[in-house]
Amino acid sequence: MCAHATTFPGAVETAPHAGYDGAMRIGVYGLGRFGRLWAEMLAERTEVIAANRSPVKEAPTGVEVVEMQELRRCDVLFLCVAISAVQEVARKLATVVEPGQVVADTCSVKVKPLEWLRAELPEEVQLLGTHPMFGPDSVRDAEASLPMVVTPERIDPERYRELRELFRVMGLEVREMSAEDHDREAAYTQGITHLVGRVLADFGVPDSEIATLGYRRLQQVMEQTCNDPYRLFLDLQHHNPYTSRMRARFTHAVDAVLESLEANVDTPKG
Amino acid sequence: MCAHATTFPGAVETAPHAGYDGAMRIGVYGLGRFGRLWAEMLAERTEVIAANRSPVKEAPTGVEVVEMQELRRCDVLFLCVAISAVQEVARKLATVVEPGQVVADTCSVKVKPLEWLRAELPEEVQLLGTHPMFGPDSVRDAEASLPMVVTPERIDPERYRELRELFRVMGLEVREMSAEDHDREAAYTQGITHLVGRVLADFGVPDSEIATLGYRRLQQVMEQTCNDPYRLFLDLQHHNPYTSRMRARFTHAVDAVLESLEANVDTPKG
Repeated sequence: MCAHATTFPGAVETAPHAGYDGAMRIGVYGLGRFGRLWAEMLAERTEVIAANRSPVKEAPTGVEVVEMQELRRCDVLFLCVAISAVQEVARKLATVVEPGQVVADTCSVKVKPLEWLRAELPEEVQLLGTHPMFGPDSVRDAEASLPMVVTPERIDPERYRELRELFRVMGLEVREMSAEDHDREAAYTQGITHLVGRVLADFGVPDSEIATLGYRRLQQVMEQTCNDPYRLFLDLQHHNPYTSRMRARFTHAVDAVLESLEANVDTPKG
Repeated sequence: MCAHATTFPGAVETAPHAGYDGAMRIGVYGLGRFGRLWAEMLAERTEVIAANRSPVKEAPTGVEVVEMQELRRCDVLFLCVAISAVQEVARKLATVVEPGQVVADTCSVKVKPLEWLRAELPEEVQLLGTHPMFGPDSVRDAEASLPMVVTPERIDPERYRELRELFRVMGLEVREMSAEDHDREAAYTQGITHLVGRVLADFGVPDSEIATLGYRRLQQVMEQTCNDPYRLFLDLQHHNPYTSRMRARFTHAVDAVLESLEANVDTPKG
């Protein structure tokens, strides 16, 4: 054909390795705060079916709500449940999943959920760790692209490539990391953010007519982290092996700043 | 005349109480990080002369740098010095200022600086407390208008009105507050922000490829507060009568959140 073939509309879809072709059927288990968002984001790009433990009043936009058993029909199944519920849910799903299906968690920690999935699901099931590092609040407020960590646990390279391409066309900034590396870094980024947010909620940061820009940013951090369930906070702090060290460093920093204030009460003028 | 007189171009400048006419000569003492910014902002609207304790390498844009003695030529003199330097500077200025001049501090606390000015300056000098609640970083990043607290200590009503109008045309959101009310509210807005910023600086919040929106906001709070001199942090915490209670509430909040984590280690799944 002619030299410009790949610039014709639609040409990109037939070129090899040229992107996501929209042919996957995606399943979502768990339609809580994050699951609804994730199902709707996926449904803008491909077919999505979803199930929930309890009846769903209103289906997410573009998503077909099904019985849990029907999740066997999907190519890739995302678990959007609390970190501390992953093991129990995986046990239930063990009799539902089909060989070759990809099961992906979406937890904010990676080491333990992937251990649980490996322990509970049949060996013929593929496994992918994911951490979409955003939620309903940050999606709305985001100025830059949204980060998405992926941890290929046991997955066919072509399916993995196809999923990464799907995430890319969804506007996500995909980073491959080991579960260990993710948890170490997330403890000191997401972990400290949620800790500070909860401390600020307990402290109280009401609106003020003399709020500075910095104070308004603290209010935003508090609101955003505390809009997430308290369960997420507990799970982030208890199921990431690095957060206990992070918390110790935080209390050490608080002590150091307060001690420095005590030591500088009579600082000389100048 | 005709009914539309005040809508003619320029008419607003001659109408009574219609705004700032640009006729004041403003003085600024102290050309540090904030003083330079404040002098340049004022110089966009009126004549500004400025003096500094040590020689100034480069004059702020639109500002004439003069000897301290020459500050007697200005109608309103802003002190842009560290909170803990106000008393000493007021003592020096006591022989410079002229009867009827307005001396205004720009401190982030209000009760003590106004006490010091009242104690050190002649009774014929007018006094205005101000707190421009922004700095070079927040001016650059600001999306909304910038808050400016004013505390009329002893000032002619017409001069006060003229100054408020000047601040308004500079784009500032002027709030009149008593010194007590200001310090109480600022301890829990600006005070907590600087405390959290210093704690985060000690903790360390480096860039991360998996930074969430909330984490980036914490980084911004840390950078913005720590770009200010450590001296400002010390003065905010030591010279505001309400910050010690604020710090006690902060450490109480840290303890409460950490204790809640300990108490919920074995939270049931569900």
